[in-house]
Amino acid sequence: MSDEYSFLKVKSLGIDTYRENIIFMRQDCEVCRSEGFSSLTRIVVSFEGKSIVATLNVVNSDILHHSEVSLSVEAMKRLGVHDGDIVHVSHLKPIQSLKKVRAKMHGHLLDEFSYQEIIKDIAAGHYSNVELAAFITSCVSKRLTTSEITSLTKAMVMTGEKLDWGSERIFDKHCVGGIPGNRTTPIVVSIVAASGLMIPKTSSRAITSPAGTADTMETLTKVDLSLQQIRKVVEKEGGCMAWGGAVQLSPADDILISVERSLDIDSESQMIASILSKKISAGTTDIIIDIPVGPSAKVRSVKDAISLQHSFASVGQAVNLGIQVVLTDGKQPVGFGIGPSLEAIDVLHVLQNEKGASADLVNHALLLSGKLLEMAGKCGSGEGIVEAKQILQSGKAFKKFVAICEAQGGFFQPKAAPFTKDFPSERAGKIVGIDNRTVARIAKLAGAPKAPTAGIFFGAHLGKNIQIGEPLLTIHAESQGELNYAYDYARSNHFIEIV
Amino acid sequence: MSDEYSFLKVKSLGIDTYRENIIFMRQDCEVCRSEGFSSLTRIVVSFEGKSIVATLNVVNSDILHHSEVSLSVEAMKRLGVHDGDIVHVSHLKPIQSLKKVRAKMHGHLLDEFSYQEIIKDIAAGHYSNVELAAFITSCVSKRLTTSEITSLTKAMVMTGEKLDWGSERIFDKHCVGGIPGNRTTPIVVSIVAASGLMIPKTSSRAITSPAGTADTMETLTKVDLSLQQIRKVVEKEGGCMAWGGAVQLSPADDILISVERSLDIDSESQMIASILSKKISAGTTDIIIDIPVGPSAKVRSVKDAISLQHSFASVGQAVNLGIQVVLTDGKQPVGFGIGPSLEAIDVLHVLQNEKGASADLVNHALLLSGKLLEMAGKCGSGEGIVEAKQILQSGKAFKKFVAICEAQGGFFQPKAAPFTKDFPSERAGKIVGIDNRTVARIAKLAGAPKAPTAGIFFGAHLGKNIQIGEPLLTIHAESQGELNYAYDYARSNHFIEIV
Repeated sequence: MSDEYSFLKVKSLGIDTYRENIIFMRQDCEVCRSEGFSSLTRIVVSFEGKSIVATLNVVNSDILHHSEVSLSVEAMKRLGVHDGDIVHVSHLKPIQSLKKVRAKMHGHLLDEFSYQEIIKDIAAGHYSNVELAAFITSCVSKRLTTSEITSLTKAMVMTGEKLDWGSERIFDKHCVGGIPGNRTTPIVVSIVAASGLMIPKTSSRAITSPAGTADTMETLTKVDLSLQQIRKVVEKEGGCMAWGGAVQLSPADDILISVERSLDIDSESQMIASILSKKISAGTTDIIIDIPVGPSAKVRSVKDAISLQHSFASVGQAVNLGIQVVLTDGKQPVGFGIGPSLEAIDVLHVLQNEKGASADLVNHALLLSGKLLEMAGKCGSGEGIVEAKQILQSGKAFKKFVAICEAQGGFFQPKAAPFTKDFPSERAGKIVGIDNRTVARIAKLAGAPKAPTAGIFFGAHLGKNIQIGEPLLTIHAESQGELNYAYDYARSNHFIEIV
Repeated sequence: MSDEYSFLKVKSLGIDTYRENIIFMRQDCEVCRSEGFSSLTRIVVSFEGKSIVATLNVVNSDILHHSEVSLSVEAMKRLGVHDGDIVHVSHLKPIQSLKKVRAKMHGHLLDEFSYQEIIKDIAAGHYSNVELAAFITSCVSKRLTTSEITSLTKAMVMTGEKLDWGSERIFDKHCVGGIPGNRTTPIVVSIVAASGLMIPKTSSRAITSPAGTADTMETLTKVDLSLQQIRKVVEKEGGCMAWGGAVQLSPADDILISVERSLDIDSESQMIASILSKKISAGTTDIIIDIPVGPSAKVRSVKDAISLQHSFASVGQAVNLGIQVVLTDGKQPVGFGIGPSLEAIDVLHVLQNEKGASADLVNHALLLSGKLLEMAGKCGSGEGIVEAKQILQSGKAFKKFVAICEAQGGFFQPKAAPFTKDFPSERAGKIVGIDNRTVARIAKLAGAPKAPTAGIFFGAHLGKNIQIGEPLLTIHAESQGELNYAYDYARSNHFIEIV
């Protein structure tokens, strides 16, 4: 390789390609010509000892000169370059771990070392989005054995940072999701931390839902904490509610999730590895996992839930985690709010023991908190719920919640959306069925979770009697376009059954 | 949707993203703000009654003004817009067929209508590359039943144009590939057309190999012919050797192939559907399919080859095609040249009956031609090879070849590469094993097929005795960088076994 031409000057074009690294070069520049680069060539870009892999988009216009190169916004951040910096470009040698991905595409079993290689390359940003999509699809459904999920989990732990709290037992909770509005985490963490246990909870942002716990908590406090910041919060308060991705607990997983999101799919194997790797990295020793079951939940039948329960238990045992799995009712949304801010409001009502607080959200949170108190030996078997209720009703939980928020960077009230619109019922009767997925999609089309105040206020729970013209839900949005778009979608898609 | 802001003026930035449609908009433009668009949002762009779907990359710099929008090079062509045209942008409604793709990701069976929906959306450019990768991966290996492959084949035929030659029987040949240098097509077409049969052969470009037949033929004549042009050539000469993609015989397949190429994978189901759909669209009634078998060929064992043979036969029957499948020796490269121009030179040597012509290429071509002559009833069973040899040795085949090239737009000599380098053997002995895949990769790293004169001259066939320092192969390249890169790869990867 004639290296003299392989240095180019960076010019920012401000093009945001989300997570994928893209490099822009003139088709007629010396490097493209001498190296034979063309569109979609995968290229190594180096600067001051650091390297990234980027996909080439060639440019045939004057937005770049022959001696210039540009990178997508995220790629510039990753490489740490600015306008005028000189970078070196070279061919990407074939990525060896992609051979393993192709073997997996063909349904072969992979060993622990193979998953380590794959996850290491993913964490380093060496895979294109197309390659990530192929790997994710190869792992969907029952295509990974328990032993492979264990390998994947361990590989994810290896690529990230790992926390040690200096405490023997660290508690945690997780919900596999799929139920709009099911925001128990802030309540459970507050109760459990108030009881004196250590529960350093890290959460993800939404994958395919209108809000993840991190999205909701971001409307109430600062969530993108560094490791050091999380440690300070937990040392002081015994718990936290931070975004996991910001502390690089499992960098490969964050990259995989961004592609899963664009495919609108959750893979069971990836989900188990994703959840458990983050927990192990966070130092967790004991965890309760909540699996909501319902016809339009993520897990649709008790049979599937039990199979998932077994997978969690097997992998948990293999990686030395104490796990309890509870199956809960997932037939309808929990609480009233769906979307970051709206769910935050629900959480505050529960913690403040307000009269209008959602009873099902309270019960759900007490069940999970109670189990953790029992696992810790804070009370006898079967006495957890009573114990948890006492902590909630005494106001200790809310006090702990505010204290944790203050420690994370301040406690603030969630904002309201600038545009709202009621969606009235077209018939009268009793509500007997709700399609969680369509309800979630309405909230997403309204802008959640990217627009934090967007979403749905959902008042039409199962068993309720409704009149013609009475609102089934209220759409909240941050733009008129999204408000109308969500409303139109709600009108043309059946999501509620009234008899 | 407040439509007044949804019109933007096109400005070309000359950014080439290959086949994926990308739209560039200012983050702070009215449309992004009112519609809630952000990076990776999928957007419908319309112009004069035509629409495409594109993925958004937001821009934070002055390369675009607030009232402007840009599209990738291919997307501008597809939509038929130029600088200054006014386009309309809107939200993409959820693509219904993606539900079917997700079902397939989970391993469910899909019916004929589902494949029609999926393929129609793919042909229309509605899928992102990530979605295409997920669909391809879901179809890899044995994940499609024969009935599903038949549905996929029929769906691909439905989305493209279809040829009718006004002749009762139309002959064709196809090789499933995997063997570098196996360029029998031009020879077979010349022999068969010279015998008076009709063989309107369309070929693809390389998917994962250093050259497809279309790449090779492009060094000898014009291959990107319109339907009308192909028809004229075939009416005049009884045969053609054109690129299939240029005539939109199966537009969905061309899009799928571009993603398969970047994944470096061939899916058996996609392959059968791809091949047979193109043949049906081209009006073929009788076809011979060549499956080379060898440890580093695409099909590695006789068992796999027989299974593939059965799939071809079953689907062929379901779509009413006469099929014969022959298994051939795929243990080593065929001929000497690997890469477009170098293979073209091999073909010319055979057609001109030159002394140095590759004997295995001759034999391979005679076997396939002979079978077709037998299927047509031009000679008795078992007499095909003798008949084919007579046509080749008489010079009639070469005369027909030149006539077809002239009809396609002219016959020209293949060019030579500006850079070449011998790769010497480091030991003496007899050659007993060749890794086709590594050999193919060396040719690809040298620049083939994008650089037409790049590739390998391969002289080290099985059984040959070699001396230390004697060249095993000669690398040809169009840039010094690629020459060195291919050479380094050859030096650090074992591809030949000498005892």
